[in-house]
Amino acid sequence: MRITDIILKKRNGLKLSKEEIDFAVLGFATGKIPDYQFAALLMSIYFKGLDRDETVELTKAMVNSGDVIDLSAIKGVKVDKHSTGGVGDKTTLILGPLVAAAGIKVPKLSGRGLGHTGGTIDKLEAISGFSVDMSQEQFFKNVNEIGLAIGGQTKELVPADKKIYALRDVTCTVDNISLIAGSVMSKKIASGADKIVLDVKVGDGAFMSTTEDAFQLGKVMVDIGEGVGRETVAVITDMNQPLGHAVGNAIEVVEAIATLKGNGPKDLHDLCMELGSQMLLVSGLYSAKSEAQACLEKLIKSGAAFAKFRAFIQAQGGNVEQVDDIFKLPQPEFSSEVVSPAEGYVHKIGARNIGLASVVLGAGRETKESKIDLSAGIYLNKKVGDSVKKGESLARVFTNNKEKTGPAKEMILTSYVILPGKPLLNPLVYGTVSAKGINKEVLLKC
Amino acid sequence: MRITDIILKKRNGLKLSKEEIDFAVLGFATGKIPDYQFAALLMSIYFKGLDRDETVELTKAMVNSGDVIDLSAIKGVKVDKHSTGGVGDKTTLILGPLVAAAGIKVPKLSGRGLGHTGGTIDKLEAISGFSVDMSQEQFFKNVNEIGLAIGGQTKELVPADKKIYALRDVTCTVDNISLIAGSVMSKKIASGADKIVLDVKVGDGAFMSTTEDAFQLGKVMVDIGEGVGRETVAVITDMNQPLGHAVGNAIEVVEAIATLKGNGPKDLHDLCMELGSQMLLVSGLYSAKSEAQACLEKLIKSGAAFAKFRAFIQAQGGNVEQVDDIFKLPQPEFSSEVVSPAEGYVHKIGARNIGLASVVLGAGRETKESKIDLSAGIYLNKKVGDSVKKGESLARVFTNNKEKTGPAKEMILTSYVILPGKPLLNPLVYGTVSAKGINKEVLLKC
Repeated sequence: MRITDIILKKRNGLKLSKEEIDFAVLGFATGKIPDYQFAALLMSIYFKGLDRDETVELTKAMVNSGDVIDLSAIKGVKVDKHSTGGVGDKTTLILGPLVAAAGIKVPKLSGRGLGHTGGTIDKLEAISGFSVDMSQEQFFKNVNEIGLAIGGQTKELVPADKKIYALRDVTCTVDNISLIAGSVMSKKIASGADKIVLDVKVGDGAFMSTTEDAFQLGKVMVDIGEGVGRETVAVITDMNQPLGHAVGNAIEVVEAIATLKGNGPKDLHDLCMELGSQMLLVSGLYSAKSEAQACLEKLIKSGAAFAKFRAFIQAQGGNVEQVDDIFKLPQPEFSSEVVSPAEGYVHKIGARNIGLASVVLGAGRETKESKIDLSAGIYLNKKVGDSVKKGESLARVFTNNKEKTGPAKEMILTSYVILPGKPLLNPLVYGTVSAKGINKEVLLKC
Repeated sequence: MRITDIILKKRNGLKLSKEEIDFAVLGFATGKIPDYQFAALLMSIYFKGLDRDETVELTKAMVNSGDVIDLSAIKGVKVDKHSTGGVGDKTTLILGPLVAAAGIKVPKLSGRGLGHTGGTIDKLEAISGFSVDMSQEQFFKNVNEIGLAIGGQTKELVPADKKIYALRDVTCTVDNISLIAGSVMSKKIASGADKIVLDVKVGDGAFMSTTEDAFQLGKVMVDIGEGVGRETVAVITDMNQPLGHAVGNAIEVVEAIATLKGNGPKDLHDLCMELGSQMLLVSGLYSAKSEAQACLEKLIKSGAAFAKFRAFIQAQGGNVEQVDDIFKLPQPEFSSEVVSPAEGYVHKIGARNIGLASVVLGAGRETKESKIDLSAGIYLNKKVGDSVKKGESLARVFTNNKEKTGPAKEMILTSYVILPGKPLLNPLVYGTVSAKGINKEVLLKC
């Protein structure tokens, strides 16, 4: 088999066989196929696409490039949740303890933030002592006992994805739905969960900018999940403004705790109910969504969800005093208001720009080596649909680097679109995709 | 300027600026842009194409990557001829002396053969002592005094083309008309001639397999020539069977000498008349094609063309005794007949396969390191349209490696298609492309 024949075949729009995809992916992962030939193949895939079979085989080959985690030591149904990345997205902090409290096992591997979106591990590390460094045995023990553990991604998981993603990034071949889906799903599959719930974000702050693309991405990811025997549901959700009010690390932990106690912002709460009930449904614990949601509401009201969060933090070395008293979390030296220049209604808050402003304040990474200011962040006082008076606060910025407040406030101000008259609100949830098909009836108004 | 922006722009089908093309080509040539990014750009160009301006700028950037030969030391109009590569194509050996005898200056850089097509230098080296190694001064002196010199390609000429071609070869991005045209024309332009006549081959043994593609390639090359102020004419000619009867090195020299003396095969003679008269027309020596052809016929009949060949060989160290007595050229130890298995007419002779058979016999190179058997080759006794009896000789093979006669004869036999009834003959010349447009009236019947 020769890689040039495989490039030529895809370039000419023909379907690649399982053997050809294995040869290309594993050859590239092991350094036998040079990057310039794989780059040519990626660009051919960009133009000619991969069909369902090819996408499943691509994902399988990526999974087979490294270790696959065996979760059989964990009892019960293991459910993973994954978001394609948004701004202010702290749902993992809430959903993990919430569904664990319902009896589901959540063995989760998370990442750190890069660019305009934050990372779950960075957020949790705002709690002093919290660590994802633990042995596999400890990880399994925590999941068995508490129902939840969050670990870092080990180096041996899907090495092909790391190499392919790095090459896509510098060859303008990132935005292909099969390649995006394969990248996400290979990691989920290698992580070993039985069932997968995906939060596919759509809008300004997301990978997918149209709902049509988002449903298509969801469909391809569900196809892959089904293709490898892992039940998968994709929920298509809005990212045309940040989720909740808080964007940062410690500040998002605070908002997650509030939501776990039933005092969170409506959009964040509603999204967690939607994603959480999908996790309960795929696990087989419930067969009716209304019952699943009622269960989750009860776990919040009873304090069980928050208690689970506390136990999870403690088990991973976190200082629970900071959970019990949020004022003990890292506090910023400086804060400043972003003031509205006009009267009217908020029509838009550019999520990507808000994410980038939080990076400027120190809450995120510009490069992999950047150090994070855990107390830095943004609190959005006004969200889309809110009325605002001239001079009223739109948002407040927090940082230890005073010089950055000015530039960050400028960025936030340009993210807000304030116009007279009430705006039309985007739905929070556009629908779901599962093996049964596309369902747009779940549409949740904001 | 960033290469990713340039890749993205072309991937999205937008037109690249001169500055962007310079940045990409010169960056790749100097190693600043890695091969995987240039591979992604090449594949985007394959899918989205380059327009006339982009193709001209690409070619200019390639020329500027290295040295440009200054031919101002040569008096008179300098005309170059280039063939896109065929089997049995010994026209340079004939046209060089022929048009030099008419008063045109032909300072020519040629290459060696690789794969199924032979190289002019290899053929000339069948004459003992002949060498293309000479100083630039000697090269200019020979052209000024004799009208013709053939040199090897120096390392400093269009280094970008060498690097880009090597990358195209392994990334399935060879067959794009702009890239093919840019590769050919950059070398012609850097070689310094004032006027360029191109022989664009079409058919089984050529780069272009349809006349439509060949005319398009001719048009793009003429556009490039005009874009840099070098008058260019492309002649679209048939390569659905080898040119002439001889395929090899010494054996092609013999056929070239016969043609220079007026005793060559009709197709080879006619093609030389067509290309030669185009060279005379672009030089401005003649304005009517019929007069140019009459001049060339006269130079053959008078012996002036052959005398010029003899002087040229002598000036480059070749043993003219071998020119005067062709039996002193390298003789093969073994020869064998390829016998017709059927009665009928020759409908087809697969040129590519014949070329590959000559490589098997030792006449060409499988890799750059292969050593050539100068006496090896094939003489085609029957060409397309000829009638043949069962048991009659179709061709004769020559080699010093007896073991290779069997496999080569098999290949030749499968190249011949013999059927009852006369075949329709392809034209020898399909037409010309010049700044004035496409002319299909010159169509020359075989």
